[in-house]
Amino acid sequence: MHHLTALVTLLAIAFYFFTSINVSRARTRTGVKVPAMSGHPDFERAFRIQMNTLEWMPIFLPALWLFAIYISDAIAAGIGVVWIIGRIVYFIGYSQAAAKRGPGFGIQALAAVALWAGALGAVVLRMV
Amino acid sequence: MHHLTALVTLLAIAFYFFTSINVSRARTRTGVKVPAMSGHPDFERAFRIQMNTLEWMPIFLPALWLFAIYISDAIAAGIGVVWIIGRIVYFIGYSQAAAKRGPGFGIQALAAVALWAGALGAVVLRMV
Amino acid sequence: MHHLTALVTLLAIAFYFFTSINVSRARTRTGVKVPAMSGHPDFERAFRIQMNTLEWMPIFLPALWLFAIYISDAIAAGIGVVWIIGRIVYFIGYSQAAAKRGPGFGIQALAAVALWAGALGAVVLRMV
Repeated sequence: MHHLTALVTLLAIAFYFFTSINVSRARTRTGVKVPAMSGHPDFERAFRIQMNTLEWMPIFLPALWLFAIYISDAIAAGIGVVWIIGRIVYFIGYSQAAAKRGPGFGIQALAAVALWAGALGAVVLRMV
Repeated sequence: MHHLTALVTLLAIAFYFFTSINVSRARTRTGVKVPAMSGHPDFERAFRIQMNTLEWMPIFLPALWLFAIYISDAIAAGIGVVWIIGRIVYFIGYSQAAAKRGPGFGIQALAAVALWAGALGAVVLRMV
Repeated sequence: MHHLTALVTLLAIAFYFFTSINVSRARTRTGVKVPAMSGHPDFERAFRIQMNTLEWMPIFLPALWLFAIYISDAIAAGIGVVWIIGRIVYFIGYSQAAAKRGPGFGIQALAAVALWAGALGAVVLRMV
Protein backbone atom coordinates (compact mmCIF):
# COMPACT_ATOMS: atom_id res chain seq x y z
CA MET A 1 0.00 0.00 0.00
CA HIS A 2 1.07 3.57 -0.70
CA HIS A 3 -0.70 5.51 2.02
CA LEU A 4 1.44 8.67 1.81
CA THR A 5 1.09 8.92 -1.95
CA ALA A 6 -2.67 8.36 -1.64
CA LEU A 7 -2.82 11.17 0.92
CA VAL A 8 -0.78 13.56 -1.28
CA THR A 9 -3.02 12.68 -4.26
CA LEU A 10 -6.12 13.65 -2.28
CA LEU A 11 -4.48 16.89 -1.09
CA ALA A 12 -3.38 17.78 -4.66
CA ILE A 13 -6.96 17.17 -5.86
CA ALA A 14 -8.28 19.38 -3.06
CA PHE A 15 -5.97 22.23 -4.06
CA TYR A 16 -6.90 21.84 -7.72
CA PHE A 17 -10.58 21.94 -6.68
CA PHE A 18 -9.85 25.19 -4.84
CA THR A 19 -8.46 26.76 -8.07
CA SER A 20 -11.80 25.87 -9.73
CA ILE A 21 -13.81 27.51 -6.98
CA ASN A 22 -11.57 30.55 -7.37
CA VAL A 23 -12.65 30.82 -11.03
CA SER A 24 -16.32 30.93 -9.97
CA ARG A 25 -15.51 33.63 -7.42
CA ALA A 26 -13.57 35.64 -10.04
CA ARG A 27 -16.59 35.33 -12.36
CA THR A 28 -18.87 36.88 -9.74
CA ARG A 29 -16.34 39.59 -8.87
CA THR A 30 -15.60 40.65 -12.46
CA GLY A 31 -19.08 40.12 -13.94
CA VAL A 32 -17.94 37.73 -16.72
CA LYS A 33 -21.08 35.66 -17.41
CA VAL A 34 -21.08 31.94 -18.37
CA PRO A 35 -20.32 30.53 -20.89
CA ALA A 36 -17.84 33.36 -21.71
CA MET A 37 -14.24 32.57 -20.69
CA SER A 38 -12.74 36.04 -21.27
CA GLY A 39 -13.64 39.71 -20.76
CA HIS A 40 -11.66 40.79 -17.67
CA PRO A 41 -7.92 40.30 -16.95
CA ASP A 42 -8.55 39.22 -13.32
CA PHE A 43 -11.00 36.57 -14.45
CA GLU A 44 -8.68 35.40 -17.25
CA ARG A 45 -5.76 35.01 -14.83
CA ALA A 46 -7.93 33.02 -12.38
CA PHE A 47 -9.04 30.82 -15.29
CA ARG A 48 -5.46 30.33 -16.51
CA ILE A 49 -4.35 29.30 -12.99
CA GLN A 50 -7.01 26.59 -12.93
CA MET A 51 -6.32 25.53 -16.52
CA ASN A 52 -2.58 25.33 -15.99
CA THR A 53 -3.10 23.24 -12.86
CA LEU A 54 -5.47 20.99 -14.83
CA GLU A 55 -2.95 20.78 -17.69
CA TRP A 56 -0.31 19.42 -15.32
CA MET A 57 -2.53 16.86 -13.57
CA PRO A 58 -2.01 14.14 -16.24
CA ILE A 59 1.76 14.69 -15.94
CA PHE A 60 1.88 14.89 -12.15
CA LEU A 61 -0.48 12.09 -11.07
CA PRO A 62 0.82 9.23 -13.28
CA ALA A 63 4.46 10.23 -12.63
CA LEU A 64 3.76 10.43 -8.87
CA TRP A 65 2.21 6.95 -8.77
CA LEU A 66 4.77 5.26 -11.01
CA PHE A 67 7.53 6.79 -8.83
CA ALA A 68 5.75 5.55 -5.69
CA ILE A 69 5.29 2.03 -7.08
CA TYR A 70 8.73 1.65 -8.64
CA ILE A 71 10.85 3.57 -6.09
CA SER A 72 9.35 4.71 -2.80
CA ASP A 73 6.01 5.78 -1.34
CA ALA A 74 7.65 8.25 1.09
CA ILE A 75 9.95 9.92 -1.47
CA ALA A 76 7.13 10.17 -4.03
CA ALA A 77 4.88 11.77 -1.42
CA GLY A 78 7.65 14.18 -0.36
CA ILE A 79 8.21 15.37 -3.94
CA GLY A 80 4.43 15.51 -4.34
CA VAL A 81 4.24 17.93 -1.41
CA VAL A 82 6.85 20.11 -3.14
CA TRP A 83 4.64 20.08 -6.26
CA ILE A 84 1.63 21.26 -4.23
CA ILE A 85 3.73 24.01 -2.61
CA GLY A 86 4.89 25.12 -6.10
CA ARG A 87 1.25 25.21 -7.20
CA ILE A 88 0.30 27.36 -4.19
CA VAL A 89 3.18 29.79 -4.92
CA TYR A 90 2.07 29.88 -8.58
CA PHE A 91 -1.52 30.57 -7.51
CA ILE A 92 -0.52 33.47 -5.23
CA GLY A 93 1.91 34.99 -7.77
CA TYR A 94 -0.29 34.69 -10.87
CA SER A 95 -3.32 36.01 -8.93
CA GLN A 96 -1.36 39.24 -8.40
CA ALA A 97 0.13 39.61 -11.90
CA ALA A 98 0.98 37.46 -14.92
CA ALA A 99 4.66 38.44 -14.53
CA LYS A 100 4.75 36.88 -11.04
CA ARG A 101 3.79 33.37 -12.15
CA GLY A 102 7.39 32.21 -12.80
CA PRO A 103 8.79 30.97 -9.44
CA GLY A 104 5.82 28.79 -8.51
CA PHE A 105 5.68 27.39 -12.02
CA GLY A 106 9.38 26.51 -11.83
CA ILE A 107 9.05 24.73 -8.46
CA GLN A 108 6.14 22.55 -9.58
CA ALA A 109 7.80 21.83 -12.96
CA LEU A 110 11.00 20.67 -11.23
CA ALA A 111 9.01 18.44 -8.86
CA ALA A 112 7.01 16.92 -11.74
CA VAL A 113 10.14 16.35 -13.85
CA ALA A 114 11.89 14.71 -10.85
CA LEU A 115 8.96 12.30 -10.45
CA TRP A 116 8.88 11.59 -14.19
CA ALA A 117 12.65 11.07 -14.55
CA GLY A 118 12.86 8.93 -11.42
CA ALA A 119 9.99 6.73 -12.58
CA LEU A 120 11.46 6.41 -16.08
CA GLY A 121 14.86 5.41 -14.71
CA ALA A 122 13.33 2.84 -12.36
CA VAL A 123 11.07 1.33 -15.05
CA VAL A 124 13.97 1.01 -17.51
CA LEU A 125 16.22 -0.53 -14.84
CA ARG A 126 13.60 -3.20 -14.14
CA MET A 127 13.32 -4.06 -17.81
CA VAL A 128 17.00 -4.53 -18.62
CA MET B 1 -9.79 -6.81 -8.38
CA HIS B 2 -12.27 -3.96 -8.64
CA HIS B 3 -14.47 -5.00 -11.54
CA LEU B 4 -17.40 -2.68 -10.77
CA THR B 5 -15.14 0.37 -10.40
CA ALA B 6 -13.36 -0.57 -13.65
CA LEU B 7 -16.75 -0.78 -15.38
CA VAL B 8 -17.90 2.59 -14.00
CA THR B 9 -14.57 4.14 -15.07
CA LEU B 10 -15.10 2.94 -18.65
CA LEU B 11 -18.71 4.21 -18.65
CA ALA B 12 -17.62 7.62 -17.28
CA ILE B 13 -14.97 7.84 -20.02
CA ALA B 14 -17.59 6.94 -22.63
CA PHE B 15 -19.90 9.71 -21.43
CA TYR B 16 -17.05 12.21 -21.38
CA PHE B 17 -16.18 11.12 -24.95
CA PHE B 18 -19.80 11.82 -25.91
CA THR B 19 -19.51 15.41 -24.58
CA SER B 20 -16.49 15.84 -26.93
CA ILE B 21 -18.41 14.55 -29.94
CA ASN B 22 -21.19 16.97 -28.99
CA VAL B 23 -18.71 19.88 -29.33
CA SER B 24 -17.87 18.78 -32.89
CA ARG B 25 -21.56 18.58 -33.71
CA ALA B 26 -22.18 22.05 -32.19
CA ARG B 27 -19.30 23.36 -34.33
CA THR B 28 -20.95 22.09 -37.52
CA ARG B 29 -24.39 23.36 -36.45
CA THR B 30 -23.25 26.88 -35.45
CA GLY B 31 -20.53 27.38 -38.09
CA VAL B 32 -17.73 28.13 -35.57
CA LYS B 33 -14.58 27.07 -37.46
CA VAL B 34 -11.48 25.47 -35.84
CA PRO B 35 -9.33 26.60 -34.11
CA ALA B 36 -11.81 29.24 -32.80
CA MET B 37 -13.40 28.31 -29.44
CA SER B 38 -16.05 31.05 -29.32
CA GLY B 39 -18.45 32.89 -31.63
CA HIS B 40 -21.89 31.37 -30.91
CA PRO B 41 -23.56 30.85 -27.48
CA ASP B 42 -24.77 27.31 -28.38
CA PHE B 43 -21.24 26.27 -29.34
CA GLU B 44 -19.77 27.92 -26.23
CA ARG B 45 -22.19 26.07 -23.94
CA ALA B 46 -21.40 22.74 -25.63
CA PHE B 47 -17.68 23.48 -25.19
CA ARG B 48 -18.14 24.45 -21.55
CA ILE B 49 -20.02 21.19 -20.87
CA GLN B 50 -17.09 19.19 -22.24
CA MET B 51 -14.51 21.38 -20.47
CA ASN B 52 -16.27 21.18 -17.13
CA THR B 53 -16.53 17.40 -17.42
CA LEU B 54 -12.81 17.29 -18.31
CA GLU B 55 -12.01 19.61 -15.38
CA TRP B 56 -13.64 17.16 -12.96
CA MET B 57 -12.02 14.01 -14.34
CA PRO B 58 -8.78 14.41 -12.27
CA ILE B 59 -10.94 14.87 -9.15
CA PHE B 60 -13.41 12.07 -9.89
CA LEU B 61 -11.16 9.26 -11.17
CA PRO B 62 -8.44 9.30 -8.46
CA ALA B 63 -11.04 9.76 -5.69
CA LEU B 64 -13.14 6.92 -7.16
CA TRP B 65 -10.20 4.52 -7.25
CA LEU B 66 -8.79 5.42 -3.83
CA PHE B 67 -12.30 4.95 -2.39
CA ALA B 68 -12.59 1.57 -4.16
CA ILE B 69 -9.18 0.39 -2.95
CA TYR B 70 -9.44 1.67 0.63
CA ILE B 71 -13.17 1.12 1.28
CA SER B 72 -15.29 -0.87 -1.19
CA ASP B 73 -15.49 -1.61 -4.90
CA ALA B 74 -19.30 -1.79 -4.85
CA ILE B 75 -19.86 1.44 -2.89
CA ALA B 76 -17.31 3.33 -5.02
CA ALA B 77 -19.00 2.10 -8.20
CA GLY B 78 -22.44 3.05 -6.83
CA ILE B 79 -21.34 6.61 -6.04
CA GLY B 80 -19.58 6.67 -9.43
CA VAL B 81 -22.91 5.90 -11.13
CA VAL B 82 -24.47 8.85 -9.25
CA TRP B 83 -21.62 11.02 -10.59
CA ILE B 84 -22.37 9.92 -14.17
CA ILE B 85 -26.10 10.59 -13.66
CA GLY B 86 -25.26 14.09 -12.34
CA ARG B 87 -23.10 14.66 -15.43
CA ILE B 88 -25.97 13.60 -17.73
CA VAL B 89 -28.41 15.95 -15.91
CA TYR B 90 -25.79 18.73 -16.20
CA PHE B 91 -25.38 18.01 -19.91
CA ILE B 92 -29.13 18.17 -20.59
CA GLY B 93 -29.67 21.31 -18.47
CA TYR B 94 -26.67 23.30 -19.70
CA SER B 95 -27.46 22.36 -23.33
CA GLN B 96 -30.79 24.16 -22.91
CA ALA B 97 -29.58 27.23 -20.99
CA ALA B 98 -26.65 28.30 -18.79
CA ALA B 99 -29.12 28.95 -15.94
CA LYS B 100 -30.19 25.28 -15.96
CA ARG B 101 -26.73 23.84 -15.23
CA GLY B 102 -27.10 23.95 -11.43
CA PRO B 103 -28.86 20.72 -10.37
CA GLY B 104 -26.67 18.34 -12.41
CA PHE B 105 -23.56 20.17 -11.28
CA GLY B 106 -24.66 19.81 -7.66
CA ILE B 107 -25.31 16.06 -7.95
CA GLN B 108 -21.93 15.28 -9.53
CA ALA B 109 -20.12 17.59 -7.06
CA LEU B 110 -21.73 15.82 -4.07
CA ALA B 111 -20.80 12.41 -5.50
CA ALA B 112 -17.19 13.50 -6.12
CA VAL B 113 -16.87 15.06 -2.66
CA ALA B 114 -18.29 11.88 -1.07
CA LEU B 115 -15.65 9.78 -2.88
CA TRP B 116 -12.89 12.22 -1.91
CA ALA B 117 -13.92 12.52 1.76
CA GLY B 118 -14.43 8.78 2.14
CA ALA B 119 -11.04 8.03 0.61
CA LEU B 120 -9.34 10.66 2.79
CA GLY B 121 -10.92 9.29 5.96
CA ALA B 122 -9.95 5.72 5.07
CA VAL B 123 -6.35 6.64 4.18
CA VAL B 124 -5.88 8.62 7.39
CA LEU B 125 -7.40 5.77 9.48
CA ARG B 126 -4.91 3.32 7.97
CA MET B 127 -1.98 5.59 8.80
CA VAL B 128 -2.75 6.25 12.48
CA MET C 1 4.01 -5.51 -12.85
CA HIS C 2 3.27 -3.78 -16.13
CA HIS C 3 6.64 -2.39 -17.14
CA LEU C 4 5.84 -1.80 -20.82
CA THR C 5 2.61 0.04 -20.03
CA ALA C 6 4.44 2.12 -17.41
CA LEU C 7 7.06 3.02 -20.02
CA VAL C 8 4.44 3.97 -22.63
CA THR C 9 2.62 6.06 -19.99
CA LEU C 10 5.81 8.03 -19.30
CA LEU C 11 6.47 8.50 -23.04
CA ALA C 12 2.88 9.67 -23.64
CA ILE C 13 3.26 12.18 -20.78
CA ALA C 14 6.55 13.40 -22.27
CA PHE C 15 4.94 14.00 -25.65
CA TYR C 16 2.01 15.79 -24.04
CA PHE C 17 4.50 17.94 -22.13
CA PHE C 18 6.15 18.79 -25.44
CA THR C 19 2.80 20.06 -26.83
CA SER C 20 2.63 22.41 -23.80
CA ILE C 21 6.14 23.75 -24.43
CA ASN C 22 5.10 24.29 -28.04
CA VAL C 23 2.29 26.59 -26.86
CA SER C 24 4.80 28.74 -24.96
CA ARG C 25 7.00 28.91 -28.05
CA ALA C 26 4.01 29.85 -30.24
CA ARG C 27 3.17 32.59 -27.72
CA THR C 28 6.65 34.11 -28.06
CA ARG C 29 6.61 33.76 -31.87
CA THR C 30 3.16 35.30 -32.39
CA GLY C 31 3.23 37.91 -29.61
CA VAL C 32 0.03 36.69 -27.87
CA LYS C 33 0.52 37.78 -24.24
CA VAL C 34 -0.67 35.82 -21.20
CA PRO C 35 -3.40 35.38 -20.03
CA ALA C 36 -4.91 35.80 -23.54
CA MET C 37 -5.60 32.47 -25.31
CA SER C 38 -6.42 33.85 -28.77
CA GLY C 39 -5.27 36.56 -31.17
CA HIS C 40 -3.21 34.73 -33.82
CA PRO C 41 -4.19 31.60 -35.83
CA ASP C 42 -0.75 29.97 -35.36
CA PHE C 43 -0.98 30.38 -31.58
CA GLU C 44 -4.57 29.17 -31.54
CA ARG C 45 -3.68 26.00 -33.47
CA ALA C 46 -0.73 25.28 -31.13
CA PHE C 47 -3.09 25.76 -28.16
CA ARG C 48 -5.75 23.50 -29.69
CA ILE C 49 -3.15 20.76 -30.27
CA GLN C 50 -2.21 20.83 -26.58
CA MET C 51 -5.84 21.08 -25.46
CA ASN C 52 -6.97 18.21 -27.66
CA THR C 53 -4.13 16.04 -26.37
CA LEU C 54 -5.11 17.01 -22.80
CA GLU C 55 -8.76 16.27 -23.57
CA TRP C 56 -7.87 12.70 -24.60
CA MET C 57 -5.59 11.93 -21.63
CA PRO C 58 -8.47 10.89 -19.30
CA ILE C 59 -9.74 8.57 -22.06
CA PHE C 60 -6.37 7.15 -23.05
CA LEU C 61 -4.65 6.59 -19.70
CA PRO C 62 -7.45 4.76 -17.81
CA ALA C 63 -8.32 2.67 -20.89
CA LEU C 64 -4.62 1.83 -21.40
CA TRP C 65 -4.19 0.66 -17.81
CA LEU C 66 -7.45 -1.28 -17.58
CA PHE C 67 -6.52 -3.01 -20.85
CA ALA C 68 -3.03 -3.80 -19.46
CA ILE C 69 -4.42 -5.15 -16.18
CA TYR C 70 -7.32 -7.15 -17.64
CA ILE C 71 -5.75 -8.34 -20.91
CA SER C 72 -2.04 -7.88 -21.56
CA ASP C 73 0.80 -5.51 -20.70
CA ALA C 74 2.51 -5.98 -24.07
CA ILE C 75 -0.62 -5.53 -26.23
CA ALA C 76 -1.70 -2.47 -24.21
CA ALA C 77 1.74 -0.93 -24.62
CA GLY C 78 1.75 -1.71 -28.36
CA ILE C 79 -1.61 0.02 -28.89
CA GLY C 80 -0.36 2.84 -26.63
CA VAL C 81 2.59 3.36 -28.99
CA VAL C 82 0.13 3.63 -31.89
CA TRP C 83 -1.74 6.29 -29.90
CA ILE C 84 1.48 8.29 -29.43
CA ILE C 85 2.30 7.97 -33.15
CA GLY C 86 -1.22 9.22 -34.00
CA ARG C 87 -0.66 12.17 -31.66
CA ILE C 88 2.65 13.01 -33.37
CA VAL C 89 1.00 12.86 -36.82
CA TYR C 90 -1.83 15.07 -35.47
CA PHE C 91 0.72 17.52 -34.07
CA ILE C 92 2.61 17.81 -37.38
CA GLY C 93 -0.54 18.09 -39.50
CA TYR C 94 -2.45 20.58 -37.32
CA SER C 95 0.71 22.71 -36.91
CA GLN C 96 0.67 23.22 -40.68
CA ALA C 97 -3.08 23.77 -41.16
CA ALA C 98 -6.38 23.00 -39.39
CA ALA C 99 -7.49 20.98 -42.44
CA LYS C 100 -4.54 18.58 -41.97
CA ARG C 101 -5.46 17.45 -38.48
CA GLY C 102 -7.67 14.55 -39.61
CA PRO C 103 -5.36 11.53 -40.18
CA GLY C 104 -3.46 11.82 -36.88
CA PHE C 105 -6.70 12.38 -35.01
CA GLY C 106 -8.17 9.26 -36.60
CA ILE C 107 -5.17 7.07 -35.70
CA GLN C 108 -5.14 8.10 -32.04
CA ALA C 109 -8.95 7.82 -31.79
CA LEU C 110 -8.86 4.25 -33.17
CA ALA C 111 -6.09 3.29 -30.74
CA ALA C 112 -7.98 4.80 -27.77
CA VAL C 113 -11.26 3.13 -28.78
CA ALA C 114 -9.45 -0.23 -29.17
CA LEU C 115 -8.08 0.10 -25.63
CA TRP C 116 -11.48 1.13 -24.28
CA ALA C 117 -13.44 -1.60 -26.07
CA GLY C 118 -10.91 -4.31 -25.17
CA ALA C 119 -10.94 -3.28 -21.51
CA LEU C 120 -14.76 -3.15 -21.44
CA GLY C 121 -15.05 -6.61 -22.98
CA ALA C 122 -12.53 -8.08 -20.55
CA VAL C 123 -14.13 -6.47 -17.48
CA VAL C 124 -17.61 -7.67 -18.47
CA LEU C 125 -16.30 -11.21 -19.17
CA ARG C 126 -14.81 -11.36 -15.67
CA MET C 127 -18.07 -10.30 -14.09
CA VAL C 128 -20.42 -12.79 -15.77
